[in-house]
Amino acid sequence: MSLTIKLRVTPTISHFDLNRKTQQIPINLRTPIYHSNKLSTSLVFRTKKMAASHVIKSSLIEPDGGILIDLVVPENQRNMKASEAEGMTKVQLTKIDLEWVHVISEGWASPLKGFMREDEYLQSLHFNSLRMKNDDGYGTIVNMSLPIVLAIDDATKEKIGGANDVALVGHDQKIVAILRSIEIYKHNKEERIARTWGTTAPGLPYVEKSITPSGNFLIGGDLEVLSPIKYNDGLDHYRLSPKQLRKEFDRRQADAVFAFQLRNPVHNGHALLMNDTRRRLLDMGYKNPILLLHPLGGFTKADDVPLDVRMEQHSKVLEDGVLDPETTIVSIFPSPMHYAGPTEVQWHAKARINAGANFYIVGRDPAGMGHPTEKRDLYDPDHGKKVLSMAPGLEKLNILPFRVAAYDMVDKKMAFFDPSRAKDFLFISGTKMRTFARTGESPPDGFMCPGGWEVLVKYYANCEEAIGVKWTGELRAVNGSYCGEMLTGELRAVNGRTEEAASSEEIGDQA
Amino acid sequence: MSLTIKLRVTPTISHFDLNRKTQQIPINLRTPIYHSNKLSTSLVFRTKKMAASHVIKSSLIEPDGGILIDLVVPENQRNMKASEAEGMTKVQLTKIDLEWVHVISEGWASPLKGFMREDEYLQSLHFNSLRMKNDDGYGTIVNMSLPIVLAIDDATKEKIGGANDVALVGHDQKIVAILRSIEIYKHNKEERIARTWGTTAPGLPYVEKSITPSGNFLIGGDLEVLSPIKYNDGLDHYRLSPKQLRKEFDRRQADAVFAFQLRNPVHNGHALLMNDTRRRLLDMGYKNPILLLHPLGGFTKADDVPLDVRMEQHSKVLEDGVLDPETTIVSIFPSPMHYAGPTEVQWHAKARINAGANFYIVGRDPAGMGHPTEKRDLYDPDHGKKVLSMAPGLEKLNILPFRVAAYDMVDKKMAFFDPSRAKDFLFISGTKMRTFARTGESPPDGFMCPGGWEVLVKYYANCEEAIGVKWTGELRAVNGSYCGEMLTGELRAVNGRTEEAASSEEIGDQA
Repeated sequence: MSLTIKLRVTPTISHFDLNRKTQQIPINLRTPIYHSNKLSTSLVFRTKKMAASHVIKSSLIEPDGGILIDLVVPENQRNMKASEAEGMTKVQLTKIDLEWVHVISEGWASPLKGFMREDEYLQSLHFNSLRMKNDDGYGTIVNMSLPIVLAIDDATKEKIGGANDVALVGHDQKIVAILRSIEIYKHNKEERIARTWGTTAPGLPYVEKSITPSGNFLIGGDLEVLSPIKYNDGLDHYRLSPKQLRKEFDRRQADAVFAFQLRNPVHNGHALLMNDTRRRLLDMGYKNPILLLHPLGGFTKADDVPLDVRMEQHSKVLEDGVLDPETTIVSIFPSPMHYAGPTEVQWHAKARINAGANFYIVGRDPAGMGHPTEKRDLYDPDHGKKVLSMAPGLEKLNILPFRVAAYDMVDKKMAFFDPSRAKDFLFISGTKMRTFARTGESPPDGFMCPGGWEVLVKYYANCEEAIGVKWTGELRAVNGSYCGEMLTGELRAVNGRTEEAASSEEIGDQA
Repeated sequence: MSLTIKLRVTPTISHFDLNRKTQQIPINLRTPIYHSNKLSTSLVFRTKKMAASHVIKSSLIEPDGGILIDLVVPENQRNMKASEAEGMTKVQLTKIDLEWVHVISEGWASPLKGFMREDEYLQSLHFNSLRMKNDDGYGTIVNMSLPIVLAIDDATKEKIGGANDVALVGHDQKIVAILRSIEIYKHNKEERIARTWGTTAPGLPYVEKSITPSGNFLIGGDLEVLSPIKYNDGLDHYRLSPKQLRKEFDRRQADAVFAFQLRNPVHNGHALLMNDTRRRLLDMGYKNPILLLHPLGGFTKADDVPLDVRMEQHSKVLEDGVLDPETTIVSIFPSPMHYAGPTEVQWHAKARINAGANFYIVGRDPAGMGHPTEKRDLYDPDHGKKVLSMAPGLEKLNILPFRVAAYDMVDKKMAFFDPSRAKDFLFISGTKMRTFARTGESPPDGFMCPGGWEVLVKYYANCEEAIGVKWTGELRAVNGSYCGEMLTGELRAVNGRTEEAASSEEIGDQA
């Protein structure tokens, strides 16, 4: 577990070194609190057995570019490549860089074969898409909305000199991969940030973590990964590659796969829409729609619930029967999170094409967050689904927008918001939820399954004990974003703007 | 003439009201100093005669969307439409808005039929392109890199209420056009600026002039223009529509048309590359390549040379025989200037497709400028042509990148820069040129034809006399951009960065 919380708080806090900007949660919180999801364990087992065949049926949707990219060096060549890499200039990877190596190596970004060279970078930045090269020069367009790039500093550029290939090394100096036929070009951070996020305001989590401190050059090239990326955090069995997922969908004889991207605990509003989607697909004539419940596993901002807690919570949701294990696959999507709204949601969808999903669920304000310096959503909550529905290269994917869900105080359950009886609905903000979880108070009956809720209560109790500080509204401001996001994915924006101003009229607009 | 210069200068200036941020040049400078270009006059005459046929051959290149959009109401319907418009809510147009009405109405932005609705706006902002709608929903992609939008304020939105159509009025309250089936949506200025310019730094000329002071909503719809847009500035005969240009190319039996976009006086370096392009086209087997010398006629920043002076200067360049009138058409491109580099150059190229040009010349740092707050170019000078060569929807256009030209001190003429004998070349910055023009000193022999040079000398002399202030380096900083831009289009960036640092190595990179 690697929860990182930025602390710039008041000096009432006791036993932490406040001079360090980032604080690691102490070891007692690092004990894995998730437990194996039976479903996923058996799934992995079956998938591994099937991997021997090396045949990937892609019956539902073709990967971008027609071929699923796999950049992991075959076992019988690993020693040779590793020796060769020893002689190359070493380029240091950050934790986020390594997540991208993982993502690229397994083909989530197919047809991308490595970190972007300048041509790919510019196309991504300006057009959110890449043109595949073919004989006449005008190939198919594939979606590619986020620049997937590797930054190096001046000293590293100098060290590389005129070399063609470099070795990429992890934080332990172990060689992870080779980057071939490299191209080094300028890293105009301001332009990259402005065009990706539509703002240059300070406080964007990915920017502060990964771009601002990075070097002034980008290095692109073809990637060869020396062995599959593993995190050894007890969650690797959840990290199914696109190849493994495709095999599993085929094994289950899915005739539709609908993906749900999330970075928050699953509440009954989420469950409602996932189950409703399945019902709709059955109504459309599909016989065996499979849900890919696909939490994001890479970098998330400090006030999001950490991955291991979320995985534990998701397990409980399946155990409690809120989602049907027979028609659900839980797996981790290894990408880091940009919080880049309409630009990022395209990446989330595109990667799921490569994983074999032919339906993608999109809600309000996907990949959005509060504006880091202004009291408003960073993105128009409707732009995500609009942009997604028009994005070049995503034509073959079925986009499923969903309506906003809220707590129906009459029926005492999460339900799709009905503007005609707005007063019956309660929008439970993340702030409220956190207060509940922190104080041990129960949320309204029917908001989340008891097992899942317990995971969160335990997490926040442990956090407070460990940090020695109560979770308060101040942290929200400190972190430049809404802690209130953590529980109520699609509701967050409404509540984030002004929690109490989520009037019926306003909600009605977003349905 | 409508030269506008922002003055925030020292109080040594005498007879002007310094409290007004923008100053009009007094009437003595408003006297037209251009004279008719014989070529253009005869051209217009012939074009007008031909217009009767209503047949537009598009032999060289199809307009985007297949049909050249023409939104000017036919004469026999004008009275009826004007009466109808009287009853509609009025929306006030700024000068720049009116330029866009002009642009849209003549089909430069084909297939766009009006100010963008939100779907078009989002596609333009995120993908720099529009997907044409057809029966299966997946039509052709056309390029559309700049949002062409109309902003309204809260009060106007309120006034419009639930109306379907509105009337657009000019500064004299005269109704100019009708906007039908309107859609009003939020104007997120920060996001628009960031995604269009790749920066949100203060001091972007178009932003400060047109976006920052504008309203918080955008209004899209279908445009009907009540009569052709005229400026009555003595230059309307230069403003040929795409329809007129296409007819003229056909009349001349052009088998290739190469467009040169510019917003600066033409020096012999420009002429060199235009003539060289013609030679190359002849070498390629074309028999009658025609040059479309196509100065931008809409909004430009205060320190650019005003349109009427440029038109006068261009006339002289043709009179002096630097360019061949027989194979050159001089016309005004009515678009306002964004100074948005790689994003804008696509618009410049796309509009010329609609005008019938099948070749487009692109130089260093097209539509670029100095960063408004940092001492560097806003854009990588090579990105413009790279982005252009990859832009969706521009595949049918032949992009002709050109090498940088400089003054060859050995041959005493403008020549393509040869890095192998860098020391023989002189990069004459705009600042130097302005000093020459201001002091009446001659530039190096062969830099610009004498007639063209004289126009500039006269312009700066008149300016100084009128404003009562010497053109100094301070104005450069005041205006947030390089006055040095005015004369040396493709050299500007090199010199703008650090005039004296234009080393052979640096220049060599850009060749």
